[in-house]
Amino acid sequence: MTAAPEAPGLRFDADDDGYVRELSEFVAVPTVSRDADAATMLAGAQWLASRLSFAAGRVEPTAGHPVVRGEWLGAPGAPTVLVYGHYDVQPTGAAAEWRTPPFQPSVEDDAAVGRIVRGRGVSDDKGTIYITVKTAQAFLAQEARLPLNVKFLFEGEEEIGSPHLAAYLADHAGDLAADLVISADGAMWRPGEPSLSLQSRGLVAVTITVRGASGDLHSGRYGGSVANPVHALSQILASMHDADGRVAVPGFYDGLTELSAERRREIASIPFDETAAVRALGLEQGHGEPGYTTLERLWERPTLEINGVSGGGQYTVIPHVATGWVTCRLVPGQSPEAIARAIADHVSRQDVRGVAVDVRFDAPGVPAYTIPAGHPAIRAAAGALAAVYPGQPVVLACIGGTVPATSLFEQILGAKTLFFSFSTADENLHAPNEFLRVSRLREGMRAWEALWRRLADAPLGAEGSLDA
Amino acid sequence: MTAAPEAPGLRFDADDDGYVRELSEFVAVPTVSRDADAATMLAGAQWLASRLSFAAGRVEPTAGHPVVRGEWLGAPGAPTVLVYGHYDVQPTGAAAEWRTPPFQPSVEDDAAVGRIVRGRGVSDDKGTIYITVKTAQAFLAQEARLPLNVKFLFEGEEEIGSPHLAAYLADHAGDLAADLVISADGAMWRPGEPSLSLQSRGLVAVTITVRGASGDLHSGRYGGSVANPVHALSQILASMHDADGRVAVPGFYDGLTELSAERRREIASIPFDETAAVRALGLEQGHGEPGYTTLERLWERPTLEINGVSGGGQYTVIPHVATGWVTCRLVPGQSPEAIARAIADHVSRQDVRGVAVDVRFDAPGVPAYTIPAGHPAIRAAAGALAAVYPGQPVVLACIGGTVPATSLFEQILGAKTLFFSFSTADENLHAPNEFLRVSRLREGMRAWEALWRRLADAPLGAEGSLDA
Repeated sequence: MTAAPEAPGLRFDADDDGYVRELSEFVAVPTVSRDADAATMLAGAQWLASRLSFAAGRVEPTAGHPVVRGEWLGAPGAPTVLVYGHYDVQPTGAAAEWRTPPFQPSVEDDAAVGRIVRGRGVSDDKGTIYITVKTAQAFLAQEARLPLNVKFLFEGEEEIGSPHLAAYLADHAGDLAADLVISADGAMWRPGEPSLSLQSRGLVAVTITVRGASGDLHSGRYGGSVANPVHALSQILASMHDADGRVAVPGFYDGLTELSAERRREIASIPFDETAAVRALGLEQGHGEPGYTTLERLWERPTLEINGVSGGGQYTVIPHVATGWVTCRLVPGQSPEAIARAIADHVSRQDVRGVAVDVRFDAPGVPAYTIPAGHPAIRAAAGALAAVYPGQPVVLACIGGTVPATSLFEQILGAKTLFFSFSTADENLHAPNEFLRVSRLREGMRAWEALWRRLADAPLGAEGSLDA
Repeated sequence: MTAAPEAPGLRFDADDDGYVRELSEFVAVPTVSRDADAATMLAGAQWLASRLSFAAGRVEPTAGHPVVRGEWLGAPGAPTVLVYGHYDVQPTGAAAEWRTPPFQPSVEDDAAVGRIVRGRGVSDDKGTIYITVKTAQAFLAQEARLPLNVKFLFEGEEEIGSPHLAAYLADHAGDLAADLVISADGAMWRPGEPSLSLQSRGLVAVTITVRGASGDLHSGRYGGSVANPVHALSQILASMHDADGRVAVPGFYDGLTELSAERRREIASIPFDETAAVRALGLEQGHGEPGYTTLERLWERPTLEINGVSGGGQYTVIPHVATGWVTCRLVPGQSPEAIARAIADHVSRQDVRGVAVDVRFDAPGVPAYTIPAGHPAIRAAAGALAAVYPGQPVVLACIGGTVPATSLFEQILGAKTLFFSFSTADENLHAPNEFLRVSRLREGMRAWEALWRRLADAPLGAEGSLDA
């Protein structure tokens, strides 16, 4: 992957202070979609819309928090891309765990990481959408045009599962039509190397509730004579894997194609120290589906994880209810509906007696999303990264997590999504002390410039291109 | 079981109002051993001690809450009994669930139950020790003596597991020596019939902790590649019973003698509607060790119950720790130490990988306590009940729960304990709206009178009497 010779490039600011100052204004608006009032969310959306004046930037209502929209369509004949991201952020968690207040961004020179700016949402996702917006502004200021048509859609509900995005997309499918979606969200895998993600896993979430008596019973007075919901739940949860770590729900792996030897070689060629990775988590060994390496398990194989259990406590009762929460991450070939059905069937086949078992699926499932390694957008993106990080191979990685929007773009707009993010997975996303590497700001702007220039000439949009 | 002809009896008050008023003073002192300050506990103890002036009643310190002591030893040649009970009470639970304030006792005519007095501790155990004290006072007032020697020991820590009782008993074993302990604590089984308890089950409490990574991991980014502590815990907990409800821990049933045909017939002859009992709990069916009826399971067989589980929650993590709480109720023939060892061994044999499992026993175990049906104290008590409840057969029941003091009396004082309580198991012990049937006050006094008169002539104390 060698860098194509660049056209004379845009000039970006010589030092980052101005960028950090402006981005900090955005981060200072506490747009926590789970908790914030409407006025706060609107203030965050308006700040962003005001930066899109070159594209008729505006705030539009949805059934939930508003979206920020804009479009610059002055390149007839050139492809059209839809830039996606989100201005909402995760809750801060315990304030005491933050080294500096989460909504008062602060710059620091970190001995290990370099220069960082710390604050909630600075990496996920305000910093990365800021990069996109500044790139567009630079194009307009210096070349009076963008190299291709660009639409912007920034939502305010990504961190709560994008509950109103599908309806909004369906209502505005015509206006949002594009040859390609580019997601500013979706962090790079590791700080040390440029990477692109070919896939994000889907999601099915299940709540299993086991009920016994009408109230907790004294375990002395009733113990041994009635079924114990926690025992039944344990039996159900234990039945979901075999001892080797394989998911034991019949049908769970149906429809999957075996990993190709080529993909296995590709993954094996990525420098990855399994032992060090496991040790960094405080573990002696990894554990998972036999026959696969850790990266294969994370990127190419589906999972079923118990996220939590609850029932009774450290007192002498037979709890009357026990609850288990399970999520599956899906890969291409698995349908959320079929997996949900397989789990419900498996649970109903367990031999638990004297209790009532309820299996509830918490939301519509999300299928896995994938973009082929040979897609022209991947080629263009790899070229853009190579231009910014010369001599560093671009890793084709996957996102173990789930980005619901990508599936919606494919289903509703018929468009593939390219993840093109300058956030990094180690930047405490969703955790206290979230930060962004300041160097990523200008690297990102240069990469977006290079990407847009490349995409301007790419044969996007034709279905056939997906097989390229 | 027919009533013996009674000697001319004591006169008790013609109406209960005076008793209820005096008992209410005692109940009004909020002696919640788990939470109360030392002054409150002392006030409760002093109230009680002041009622024992005929027996040099006094408050004595322990390493925890004080005990109330007293003795009347004016019957040389007659047996000596030690009356046990507790002046501490359970926490109230949610105040909003109480129909009247828990420490403002109120009298009410309940359509289903009859006349009751409601308040925390009125049934467990203040009302039942009040009965004993008033019986003794009536003897002294009307006959100037008791029919036998009586020592009193009322503790203030029963509801928190009697943590300082063993040391206190060991330090005062000489002073507390008795031919028999009579426990005012240990409720009657059902309101409809007089009953005595031959046994209380022992207790072993276990905390099982499964640890994985050093912190919770994002189940998308790490799912499928590391062991999940909740899965491992579920596997361990599920392994503890077979599908039929038998405890599957090897060695758990070692040392037990099979139920005799005679005991089975005795239990079967007790009127007990299994279906109605299960329905009353909101269940369709019971569940437990195959081959035993519900009463056999509750009274004669050991149990292993999961009291609670905790780990993670309804969010997409792999929890780094999962905890399960288990208690066993033991029957005669089982040693707490051997059961603890069997559980630890069983857990260590489970094939769970990639996690660390810790099994901790929460306190010294308590063996089962038993008193033979033919013990002279049981015969005397049955006779006393028959005198008060003429024509009603006395049921020989068991206590499914655990009364640690009984084992301590046997181990440290070498004395058997007779449960002789006029509390009833349905009186919301440990729950909101605890109450005592007012009619039990005078029934109890008459029964204690009859019991003491009978015991005065019983051959207690000789080891041989235990086999009578």
